[in-house]
Amino acid sequence: MRSQGGAVQSARERLARRLRALRAERGLSQEALADLADLHRTYVGSIERRERNVSLDNVERLAAALDVDIVELLAPT
Amino acid sequence: MRSQGGAVQSARERLARRLRALRAERGLSQEALADLADLHRTYVGSIERRERNVSLDNVERLAAALDVDIVELLAPT
Repeated sequence: MRSQGGAVQSARERLARRLRALRAERGLSQEALADLADLHRTYVGSIERRERNVSLDNVERLAAALDVDIVELLAPT
Repeated sequence: MRSQGGAVQSARERLARRLRALRAERGLSQEALADLADLHRTYVGSIERRERNVSLDNVERLAAALDVDIVELLAPT
């Protein structure tokens, strides 16, 4: 998949960047977002470090916690 | 998440519908698509029946096999 600059960007990369940006916009810590999404407190950090192969259900929970559509979490950055 | 009709549509529901539509457009069987994506031959069927909590890496593999961006597989239907 291509980012706007044309570089190939993995889904994990996109999710990590979009999660961090949307979380920062809302002034949420990684732990606070994990709590809102009812996920383990270290979960968000591991996603932002591209370490985790997240399940679709959990991406959906994070989108709901951030009040965005799931495609916003996977849009090119 | 809302579909165009406004009904709440889960990410699994969207993926199931978009996968089936894109697969049918290309005249691919479930097994043929699973093969292209290097996944078990029953994998696509279980997604289309909403049985599977797919990982992000596997959604990405399916998008690549269908030659679409990952957000197309999770767009509202």
